[in-house]
Amino acid sequence: MKILNEPKELQRLAETIRLQEKRIGFVPTMGALHDGHLSLVKIAKQRADVVMVSVFVNPLQFGKNEDFERYPRPFERDVELARLAGADILFAPSAAALYGEGFQTFVEVREISKGFEGDVRPTHFRGVATVVLKLLNLAKPHVAVFGEKDAQQLALVRRMVADLNLDVEIVGAPIVREPDGLAMSSRNVYLSAEERREATILYRALQEAKRALESGERNPDALKRLVVATISSVPIATLDYAEIVCAEDFSPTPALQSGKTYFLILAARFGKTRLLDNLRFSL
Amino acid sequence: MKILNEPKELQRLAETIRLQEKRIGFVPTMGALHDGHLSLVKIAKQRADVVMVSVFVNPLQFGKNEDFERYPRPFERDVELARLAGADILFAPSAAALYGEGFQTFVEVREISKGFEGDVRPTHFRGVATVVLKLLNLAKPHVAVFGEKDAQQLALVRRMVADLNLDVEIVGAPIVREPDGLAMSSRNVYLSAEERREATILYRALQEAKRALESGERNPDALKRLVVATISSVPIATLDYAEIVCAEDFSPTPALQSGKTYFLILAARFGKTRLLDNLRFSL
Repeated sequence: MKILNEPKELQRLAETIRLQEKRIGFVPTMGALHDGHLSLVKIAKQRADVVMVSVFVNPLQFGKNEDFERYPRPFERDVELARLAGADILFAPSAAALYGEGFQTFVEVREISKGFEGDVRPTHFRGVATVVLKLLNLAKPHVAVFGEKDAQQLALVRRMVADLNLDVEIVGAPIVREPDGLAMSSRNVYLSAEERREATILYRALQEAKRALESGERNPDALKRLVVATISSVPIATLDYAEIVCAEDFSPTPALQSGKTYFLILAARFGKTRLLDNLRFSL
Repeated sequence: MKILNEPKELQRLAETIRLQEKRIGFVPTMGALHDGHLSLVKIAKQRADVVMVSVFVNPLQFGKNEDFERYPRPFERDVELARLAGADILFAPSAAALYGEGFQTFVEVREISKGFEGDVRPTHFRGVATVVLKLLNLAKPHVAVFGEKDAQQLALVRRMVADLNLDVEIVGAPIVREPDGLAMSSRNVYLSAEERREATILYRALQEAKRALESGERNPDALKRLVVATISSVPIATLDYAEIVCAEDFSPTPALQSGKTYFLILAARFGKTRLLDNLRFSL
């Protein structure tokens, strides 16, 4: 596995690979890799000849009082995990290399950036859209793989790719979970032992909703109430939101329609740690 | 010359051309082609194997009370002129094809979009940046050529390309003028006979400033006063601004430094028609 730090070097290599008519698969990450990320690398490998993984903790997508500084950066371990998962190229630029002097260009995906994570983190999605566009321009992939755990981010990336006519296929990959159901996240390491134990309530709440759906429940409010009630059984969990949204445009839905795909999304805090989870379903 | 209307079709063709290791040169225009545009096509031909010209009056870069509806659209003539100038592919999409349902993604180049044209036309440069990015993603050029008459636009495109890591070389082409000095513009057709006659004052004012520079004048305020005084000699001309800015970041300069490149930019109205002109100079 080749490790590159210079944006221009990655771009030149990507161009060379494309001219060889090889397909490039790309997995952008903020590092602190876990099995969720590694599943994305595997999907990229199935769909491409050369797999690039980027490791970059993007300052632009963190708010002022967020965890940019303490975000985990186990770089040597990430290198090893990416290599074992079969990545061919690991791109790890510095912030200075990616955001040069005079940087002033931002991408805004408007409606999808509003609500949910966009409400709690007002400049987050502008930072995500901007860095993803930059990385796509450098890695020049034919296909890029994103995790479905960050469902709003995935919808935003799909929308940006369509709106800006980017020539890349976006693939969403299912959430990977710990044995007890907790969705894998680089932020899980922040949890205390108690918080870690109780955090499985998010998965359990989603499973309750899934069972209700399977039993024929079609009322979004009833499904949400079920999730809220389940999570409220854990006193140390503070629910930020639970909502059912259309998968495509992330708009809340007043009524479920058959043939459409939805996410039941939720965010909850355990102490200072915010966790996301969701259930994807179609009727 | 091939004429394409479908974005995806242009993108597929561009990818095929790149895989043949041919260089693509791109000239984005709003049509109503004149010798200024044709000079861009010639420059693109010198630098590339295949030249693409787009003709698209971009609604996104027009304000509500601007001239989007009456902007000239002599399409048959544009096709003929592009063909004669040696373009290989002409791309003329509909607005609906380029801005599909649910479109919501915008590119903002912040500082360079402020001041001058950005003050008079608050959403103009967001529209320019967004459409230029979309067109670059579709045409996949190795080199794209823009006219220096729209100097702020050129600076913005250069900044966006650097900030978003676009793999394209941006070339600025010198202003092409009518025999009496008026900078060529698709909007010149709006001028009445009298306005057209008097509009040469812009060029004459820039020539006065050029002579003063050649005589050793180095005071930006003195140069600006000269331009203002010259233009005020024509009662039907209303000067919007005259300023000396650094070519790179378009910031006004309090003092000229040797080794740097500047634009003396100006905008003036003749009746309802706004005209831009500028003088590029280095010390």
